Amino acid sequence: MRQVFHDFRLATRGRGLYEFTNAVAEWLSTQDLTSGLLTLHLRHTSASLLIQENADPDVRRDLEALFSRLVRDGDPLFVHTAEGADDMPAHIRTALTTVNLSIPVNQGRLALGTWQGIYVWEHRHSPHTRTVAAHFIGE
Amino acid sequence: MRQVFHDFRLATRGRGLYEFTNAVAEWLSTQDLTSGLLTLHLRHTSASLLIQENADPDVRRDLEALFSRLVRDGDPLFVHTAEGADDMPAHIRTALTTVNLSIPVNQGRLALGTWQGIYVWEHRHSPHTRTVAAHFIGE
Amino acid sequence: MRQVFHDFRLATRGRGLYEFTNAVAEWLSTQDLTSGLLTLHLRHTSASLLIQENADPDVRRDLEALFSRLVRDGDPLFVHTAEGADDMPAHIRTALTTVNLSIPVNQGRLALGTWQGIYVWEHRHSPHTRTVAAHFIGE
Repeated sequence: MRQVFHDFRLATRGRGLYEFTNAVAEWLSTQDLTSGLLTLHLRHTSASLLIQENADPDVRRDLEALFSRLVRDGDPLFVHTAEGADDMPAHIRTALTTVNLSIPVNQGRLALGTWQGIYVWEHRHSPHTRTVAAHFIGE
Repeated sequence: MRQVFHDFRLATRGRGLYEFTNAVAEWLSTQDLTSGLLTLHLRHTSASLLIQENADPDVRRDLEALFSRLVRDGDPLFVHTAEGADDMPAHIRTALTTVNLSIPVNQGRLALGTWQGIYVWEHRHSPHTRTVAAHFIGE
Repeated sequence: MRQVFHDFRLATRGRGLYEFTNAVAEWLSTQDLTSGLLTLHLRHTSASLLIQENADPDVRRDLEALFSRLVRDGDPLFVHTAEGADDMPAHIRTALTTVNLSIPVNQGRLALGTWQGIYVWEHRHSPHTRTVAAHFIGE
């Protein structure tokens, strides 16, 4: 049993879902380990990790629309506004989703379902560089 | 240190919470490994994994009621409607919860609290077969 | 590769976020293992684990305010009311967040970002003792 670490860096260009399933699969394919547990941890508090449908782009559009209604940019409820009208909503959207994912990998294949993709969900409107710390333990 | 993989298959009969704590505990009890880390990954985008109260069924009823109000079936906000009025809400309810769980297992016992049960939360109204990929690493 | 188990106990004094990043880091520093995967599992159904901004306390205040609006104490929608007006909201807030965290640890350092802290989010108004089961596998 062995383990490896890696950092994925993603450039985001405003609020939205950025798939990086292929980058994860490609990195795994370069490792000697073929079966084990993959953990992804996003090192930020205003973006999320999400496993979501990767077929119809309207799903991402509707997901965005509903979250924007649940947590409104510039809501007068918020006191923490110094970093912009989208900053506090970004923290809350992160709390409503997650920053950790754990995915089994069996004989070189991620245990994702047919329609599952791995996304960074950027919650800020301005571009950011996001880092995902990856850990893979296995054999 | 060793690892094992398993797929749990659950037949759902419409929207609601389906407990499978016992199936997990029984599978663990058949393994040579007694202590380690259990990971569960649901391979779908319109159902969730949830750890929730397993005592009063009213808790599940109220959970359902509140989520149905937060994300309404057939909301005119949604563009992705071809697969039914409950499909886009199912994706959003999945994003609001999770598809991964990580639970320590110590000397044969899941680290669940007294009132915690492990559930598949089916978000679609029609019956489905759901697969949960399990991974257990330990000794 | 080896593994260790530990229970963290936290006394909460009403609804709010209780950071215990330092307790986790201190416990890790006493282990022989320096690199691996840390898993935290909260053994309750009316509190959550959350990774969130640890700088401006207004972030926690606003997070609380928005969640209190999404899920109202004493909402007449709820049937499960015997344990108090904040009990069913506590279960729902737990479902909207999470009770599991998985964090890589590389050469003695948690892979947390600069602004990320680890919190127990108490959802009940009365004081509680909360237990977090920790598992660390590594070398």
